[in-house]
Amino acid sequence: MLYFASDYQEGAHPSILQRLAETNLEKHPGYGTDEICASAGKRIRDACGCPDAGVYFLSGGTQTNKIVITSLLRPWQGVISADTGHISTHEAGAIEEAGHKVLTLPHTEGKIDAEEIRAMCAAWEEDANHDHTVMPGMVYLSQPTEYGTLYSPEELEAIRRVCDRFGLKLYIDGARLAYALAVPHSPTLRDLARLCDVFYIGGTKCGALFGEAVVIPDPAALPHFFTVIKQHGALLAKGWVAGIQFDELFRDGLYLKLGQNALEKAHRIRDVFRRAGFQTAFDSPTNQVFLVLEDNVYERLSSVISVSFWEKKNETHTVVRLASSWATSDEEVSQLEKQIDLLCASPTTEVTGV
Amino acid sequence: MLYFASDYQEGAHPSILQRLAETNLEKHPGYGTDEICASAGKRIRDACGCPDAGVYFLSGGTQTNKIVITSLLRPWQGVISADTGHISTHEAGAIEEAGHKVLTLPHTEGKIDAEEIRAMCAAWEEDANHDHTVMPGMVYLSQPTEYGTLYSPEELEAIRRVCDRFGLKLYIDGARLAYALAVPHSPTLRDLARLCDVFYIGGTKCGALFGEAVVIPDPAALPHFFTVIKQHGALLAKGWVAGIQFDELFRDGLYLKLGQNALEKAHRIRDVFRRAGFQTAFDSPTNQVFLVLEDNVYERLSSVISVSFWEKKNETHTVVRLASSWATSDEEVSQLEKQIDLLCASPTTEVTGV
Amino acid sequence: MLYFASDYQEGAHPSILQRLAETNLEKHPGYGTDEICASAGKRIRDACGCPDAGVYFLSGGTQTNKIVITSLLRPWQGVISADTGHISTHEAGAIEEAGHKVLTLPHTEGKIDAEEIRAMCAAWEEDANHDHTVMPGMVYLSQPTEYGTLYSPEELEAIRRVCDRFGLKLYIDGARLAYALAVPHSPTLRDLARLCDVFYIGGTKCGALFGEAVVIPDPAALPHFFTVIKQHGALLAKGWVAGIQFDELFRDGLYLKLGQNALEKAHRIRDVFRRAGFQTAFDSPTNQVFLVLEDNVYERLSSVISVSFWEKKNETHTVVRLASSWATSDEEVSQLEKQIDLLCASPTTEVTGV
Amino acid sequence: MLYFASDYQEGAHPSILQRLAETNLEKHPGYGTDEICASAGKRIRDACGCPDAGVYFLSGGTQTNKIVITSLLRPWQGVISADTGHISTHEAGAIEEAGHKVLTLPHTEGKIDAEEIRAMCAAWEEDANHDHTVMPGMVYLSQPTEYGTLYSPEELEAIRRVCDRFGLKLYIDGARLAYALAVPHSPTLRDLARLCDVFYIGGTKCGALFGEAVVIPDPAALPHFFTVIKQHGALLAKGWVAGIQFDELFRDGLYLKLGQNALEKAHRIRDVFRRAGFQTAFDSPTNQVFLVLEDNVYERLSSVISVSFWEKKNETHTVVRLASSWATSDEEVSQLEKQIDLLCASPTTEVTGV
Repeated sequence: MLYFASDYQEGAHPSILQRLAETNLEKHPGYGTDEICASAGKRIRDACGCPDAGVYFLSGGTQTNKIVITSLLRPWQGVISADTGHISTHEAGAIEEAGHKVLTLPHTEGKIDAEEIRAMCAAWEEDANHDHTVMPGMVYLSQPTEYGTLYSPEELEAIRRVCDRFGLKLYIDGARLAYALAVPHSPTLRDLARLCDVFYIGGTKCGALFGEAVVIPDPAALPHFFTVIKQHGALLAKGWVAGIQFDELFRDGLYLKLGQNALEKAHRIRDVFRRAGFQTAFDSPTNQVFLVLEDNVYERLSSVISVSFWEKKNETHTVVRLASSWATSDEEVSQLEKQIDLLCASPTTEVTGV
Repeated sequence: MLYFASDYQEGAHPSILQRLAETNLEKHPGYGTDEICASAGKRIRDACGCPDAGVYFLSGGTQTNKIVITSLLRPWQGVISADTGHISTHEAGAIEEAGHKVLTLPHTEGKIDAEEIRAMCAAWEEDANHDHTVMPGMVYLSQPTEYGTLYSPEELEAIRRVCDRFGLKLYIDGARLAYALAVPHSPTLRDLARLCDVFYIGGTKCGALFGEAVVIPDPAALPHFFTVIKQHGALLAKGWVAGIQFDELFRDGLYLKLGQNALEKAHRIRDVFRRAGFQTAFDSPTNQVFLVLEDNVYERLSSVISVSFWEKKNETHTVVRLASSWATSDEEVSQLEKQIDLLCASPTTEVTGV
Repeated sequence: MLYFASDYQEGAHPSILQRLAETNLEKHPGYGTDEICASAGKRIRDACGCPDAGVYFLSGGTQTNKIVITSLLRPWQGVISADTGHISTHEAGAIEEAGHKVLTLPHTEGKIDAEEIRAMCAAWEEDANHDHTVMPGMVYLSQPTEYGTLYSPEELEAIRRVCDRFGLKLYIDGARLAYALAVPHSPTLRDLARLCDVFYIGGTKCGALFGEAVVIPDPAALPHFFTVIKQHGALLAKGWVAGIQFDELFRDGLYLKLGQNALEKAHRIRDVFRRAGFQTAFDSPTNQVFLVLEDNVYERLSSVISVSFWEKKNETHTVVRLASSWATSDEEVSQLEKQIDLLCASPTTEVTGV
Repeated sequence: MLYFASDYQEGAHPSILQRLAETNLEKHPGYGTDEICASAGKRIRDACGCPDAGVYFLSGGTQTNKIVITSLLRPWQGVISADTGHISTHEAGAIEEAGHKVLTLPHTEGKIDAEEIRAMCAAWEEDANHDHTVMPGMVYLSQPTEYGTLYSPEELEAIRRVCDRFGLKLYIDGARLAYALAVPHSPTLRDLARLCDVFYIGGTKCGALFGEAVVIPDPAALPHFFTVIKQHGALLAKGWVAGIQFDELFRDGLYLKLGQNALEKAHRIRDVFRRAGFQTAFDSPTNQVFLVLEDNVYERLSSVISVSFWEKKNETHTVVRLASSWATSDEEVSQLEKQIDLLCASPTTEVTGV
């Protein structure tokens, strides 16, 4: 069986494990007050061109989204998100548990745009009864999105302008940020630091055992954030275990290199399928590949390659997702190619369009 | 400088790091649904004599306390705790953030007893206005306590009987459980599984990089607990990273051995100080050593040995804490002895009683 | 100016004020433990054919919805509602503040149906990742709906069957229930008591100064509900002030008579507008009348009659709402008729279809 | 039976009922946007010497405390209160349900003082681990306290200075404020408006059917408070029903007169008991009278006079509370006197000291 179902199936980049081993019996103060966390924070600040930024290391994406969003919002506010945003669909109601409504906009391949956000806020402003409704207080974007698509620098600039017009905070979920940063002409860390109130740099899906680095360009945006992290049970006693991972990921541009590897492999995967006559569901320039499969092809494919069910396209076709990662090897993609060749050679499998 | 301030200053037992390295590029399904977590869960169930128990791996103690307590309580209930309980003092209001009052009882060296719990519940029952007050719904104990003291099997049995009488759930915070289990005649894992509704086996302070294993002898006590974990942002995508740690800690009795090492070192540390004329603040049989120091001694000691401030005893004396851990070596204790000898030899340091 | 903007513009039925005056200096125990509340509860139980029901008197609809819904749900569950449901739109995020997601279904004239609810629950059941999502836990309906429409007995029976199939609780918001009960062949109080887990009988919009009566056919459905009410700040110290209102509303069928008055007036209002060539936006059999108006007609109408803006129909037409109430008099409707005649006689006003 | 158990046993001052009757069929806009609420607000602003204050009318004390406190605090903060404060004891965990810890100080006859508050805040500041604990964010006082005692102007000034020193908000619960204001030289409404961030003027226990008036001298202290009220289910649709009550209570000084009546009656009640040899538990200058009774006297007294159990003094004596109110008549006190005379004349009742 070949495994392409997701990008969090392996452990960590070897340099992380090596560093953990090397430092294992050193003594550190707790809760992220150690020198390794300080070093990792400095590297991230440098990469963001943001020498005063607050940097905190949390364990996972849902945790980070929940803590940041509830800290940026006041009780009467909600968060604007694509209806396909992770916070809206796959976080088990974490945002609502924290007391806030997710104000959804219909997505376009996982994205929302400045004009849609503006229209929602303008409608709220114009509603004579808006004091009885939830006020939009911030915007949640994911980069890349859950559909593997990207916001361009111009799109983010436009969204920032709408945020400024309506007093909204802007927050970006970078669970897979390495795979966005590696795409040429996509927004850089400096762009994100300039345009966002808060964003996070994903580790779990980008080469770490676990961990997400929250970046707060102006730390006054999240006062007493250390205590809030503790209150939500997200403060690691051995903070340096997360710190080591980001200190390695941001040493010598490793984070970007890991992203580039995933992109190269994803491009090869797309080529393999296209050459074999398969159809992609939509254009996604990052590490996720979405295919439209006839259901019988889906079934045969699944017997040899582990992929993710995405959604039913229609009564006879299904959309599936394959993901490459920092760890995907040339060898794995070659094996995939071989399997696809075998599959297509079989007289009972014929790949046709929708 | 020698470091005895706490028991979470080092990384993990080497077998954990080795296992992480060995399995690093294996592919696992996410969210704790992998075979390593299954194996770790089985080992813990076996150790607890509890084949049907639910076992979940979380990241830290405050997180575990918050999620378990809010899951065991209904909205109108609060949790009984010693006023020195971790949930009452050092979790930044995590329990209240989850909507519940901590109903405190005055502690005796970190402990509360069955009679005190009974009296609190009886007073609630007898209060004609109790529908206007918070109903006691569960008991929170820590084993060992924050003062390093232990509940005996008989004490836990008595508390369980009070819980049964008043319909209370019993939950034990085992952040340092290895150091309790290693004490002869203290309650065993089987005792805990028999007497508690839920307890957790601490990893972070007992040999892991991070991680706590929640044990639910009757899984029906916490329905949909997976989703609740996710909702609180505590579900690790790479669940096996926690699973590996407990699979190692519960292989061949390692967890108990790590506890024993810490106890031996703590006994030696106590001896070192007693022989030098120091006074312990109270009897604590586990890995924490509490000393009463004259303030000038405290100052001199602190210049060579990192210890924890615990509390002011009076105007001229301070209580400090030293902790040994799974990782404390004979060499470290010998160096400590040497430093204490030097300190006592100095003409300006005279150790006297309170 | 004539006032038809809503059904909560007047005070209370005179018998309520008279009873308040008569009993003003009598001494009562607090918090609804008095004999008047007991009598009101008994009358409501009798009317519902439900001798064991729990009956509680709260102050308003949002408060009631919030407290009942958060009490019926467990933390991992959400509430299914029409996207136009009051809890989804005009309660300022009260349900989310209590920790729960509102799972919306597209409405049809304010209603959702059994098949739509079934499909949502079946999709949740079939979703392999549903442990990462919010589980449907209950259904919220309003009777009449925000659009003045009604669920028939058969429709409620079908919804109940879906609820039983998927373990959902059924809750009905009866803010305007008097105006539903007065419609022939609509579900009776006995039907509601038989089919719902909880429902409330609206007072504020149906003849009381304020007050909603929560009916819990099986009181075990909401344990410790008194304490939960207190915890949410909704327990009236002088409970009998609410009790008096429901004791009067349920004396000699007053509640139903008040409903009938509103229906008669609403029918007359519809006739007035239809005869003048106006078009209703959709069929609503209760006390709310929805008209589609050309914008210039809307403007002229608003200068003499206070109505509610409902929504823009298109670029040139607007939907407005008029409401009758228990207090609407023949005289008021006659004045309305006169104003409409004048309006239509004006050469600058021509009423045309959409 | 004579009723002196509490001060919320009767309805409302007759002028309120009369005004409700007179205005019953007038049409008002909803949610407190009407002219009566505007008038009541103006009268309260005038009485407070605070022309820009925000004034909102809520239904009850627990509701008011919960909404104000959760609005004044940020998530990482708690509220300082006497351990006997209503929020700490008899609000069913409402503050915790809203996410905040009540930081209790031991009371002295219901009060806490500036020095105790200062010491708690200084200890927090000096605690090296305070980022792991709940930060004091505000002070909750009740005036009069639950023990009927009063803060003097000088005591409030001193507390305000501590609040300024530590950045604390100051909030006063005035559930029985009429009975404090009527005491000579006690703090006036102008004093409260000058010293508090928020306070409320109690209606429910001071002449209204229900209702508390929240006064926010600087409305910027509670932004979007209307929406927050709605979100907590506390926004009355017929806001003028509360507005009428305060418009009457603040017409021609009625509120103060009602307070004075209660004080006069309380003084007479104290005299009756003292002359008969009874002992008061402590000095309380307002409308509550606390007596220490031998248990057999308590039993005999209870058979003819309804009083409140307060607490056990010791094994043989009990403290009970009697309360006068705005409605207590001379006739009632005379009847009380007669009953006490009869009681003392009985050979089996002998009143003795503790």
